[in-house]
Amino acid sequence: MKMISFARNGREGYGLLKEGGVIDAGGRLPDYPDLTSLLADPAPLRALEGLPADFAEEDVTTLPPIPRSGRIICIGLNYKSHIAETGNDTPAYPILFPRYPSSLVANGAPMEKSSLSERFDFEGELAFVIGRPGRHIPKERALEHVAGYACFNDGSIRDFQRHTSQFLPGKNFERSGAFGPWLVTPDEVGDVNALKLTTRLNGEVVQQADIDDLLFGVEDLIAYISQIWTVQPGDVVATGTTGGVGALRKPPLWMKPGDRVEVEIDRLGLLSNPIIEEVQA
Amino acid sequence: MKMISFARNGREGYGLLKEGGVIDAGGRLPDYPDLTSLLADPAPLRALEGLPADFAEEDVTTLPPIPRSGRIICIGLNYKSHIAETGNDTPAYPILFPRYPSSLVANGAPMEKSSLSERFDFEGELAFVIGRPGRHIPKERALEHVAGYACFNDGSIRDFQRHTSQFLPGKNFERSGAFGPWLVTPDEVGDVNALKLTTRLNGEVVQQADIDDLLFGVEDLIAYISQIWTVQPGDVVATGTTGGVGALRKPPLWMKPGDRVEVEIDRLGLLSNPIIEEVQA
Repeated sequence: MKMISFARNGREGYGLLKEGGVIDAGGRLPDYPDLTSLLADPAPLRALEGLPADFAEEDVTTLPPIPRSGRIICIGLNYKSHIAETGNDTPAYPILFPRYPSSLVANGAPMEKSSLSERFDFEGELAFVIGRPGRHIPKERALEHVAGYACFNDGSIRDFQRHTSQFLPGKNFERSGAFGPWLVTPDEVGDVNALKLTTRLNGEVVQQADIDDLLFGVEDLIAYISQIWTVQPGDVVATGTTGGVGALRKPPLWMKPGDRVEVEIDRLGLLSNPIIEEVQA
Repeated sequence: MKMISFARNGREGYGLLKEGGVIDAGGRLPDYPDLTSLLADPAPLRALEGLPADFAEEDVTTLPPIPRSGRIICIGLNYKSHIAETGNDTPAYPILFPRYPSSLVANGAPMEKSSLSERFDFEGELAFVIGRPGRHIPKERALEHVAGYACFNDGSIRDFQRHTSQFLPGKNFERSGAFGPWLVTPDEVGDVNALKLTTRLNGEVVQQADIDDLLFGVEDLIAYISQIWTVQPGDVVATGTTGGVGALRKPPLWMKPGDRVEVEIDRLGLLSNPIIEEVQA
């Protein structure tokens, strides 16, 4: 299944994407206010899979699949080839930092370059979302806790990221990253390690990686994080980016208003966003 | 005013604390589901200040003042005397890292020592909560955005904090920190820089600081953070801890089950928590 969150006629909804359009699941499941409430047990969604589409895809505005996740955890320096390229030591543990929902836009929506920086960089990533809650989850059972996968752009304001040892500021400018276009369930994804990730800037490939080059894979990350807290439905984990980021190029390659950035992963779809200057409130 | 979030008879509520008890504000303000919804303009709360108390304080269970804050930002290495003591350089920018609500308990509730670590440390801090939203807030107007102040214990699992460069894991074990006992409005606090912070472990003073020793004060922090995002009602900022933490003592001083840790700040009250072993779900 492809699970989608959307807005239509000024109201938020969710549903399933199928050829020809969107099945309005939210309108049929009044006990479930949003996708998050169905992630631990998506059976009520499965029951709707055979219905005809209610809307054309163009008639809804896509939202990030989990619009208000309580925890969006990003991983730093997690592709083996990228670690080699940077000359860093191989991390002994996953490097975790946060994004907040206000820093993420949906597929198609503009990503904003801060008015305070010209160093706006792309980071194409694979994200997964937790379904079943759990703590101290053994690696062997970790995949049972995944509700779905999506593309992620961990857009970064590099100078703010380097203000101190902690990455948080550079990773949380309003509307500076992207998440989507939808969430694909594990049965439809198959072996996530067999997927390929591609990032394009203005049509040119700037990053490419095989997911199986991840140092800490999906199972490792769930096992580590669930030592710390009870992972909850709707927790998002963006698994880290690969080589080719703009900051490490000579000369550096920064995103600027008018550009278009795309993250594409086999079977997960295309996350495509134009870049604009910061919108003043 | 002292604003309090609480549970009573299995339901969540909020109100005002006054001598003799708690005014049940939530029961009188059906348009405002929680304290957060009143932080930008607390006038409806002010209008209730003169009422008699509805419950004795003992008849409610205190919750963290903002039980489900979307953003809890902690500041590292922010007391001038503490920086000197550690031998670190003075940071040029505030050091920001996150806590999630699941890592915080209310006054009186037990703080949990992870089953995976013996290195459980205290960090007494001053926290403030945003009221009026804003972005790019100039320092001179920053205090207009503060809804209130409270005590905070940034309880830390030191080995997980040092797994990588990023502090997030060590700062987010379930129920490993504390926030409260309530939120005190700026008019009742007066000059926040005139306050004194004291941390006690089993009755012994382990940390003491004057708030005016902060390198980045409340105004600086609001100005910096609001460059990144639009600060929102209910955003919590814990301003950092001072010297005396257990990890830097020789020998180190760790919190263990059976201990009691207290953070007290003039006019903000006493945040007191027993330490227990991790509760297995």
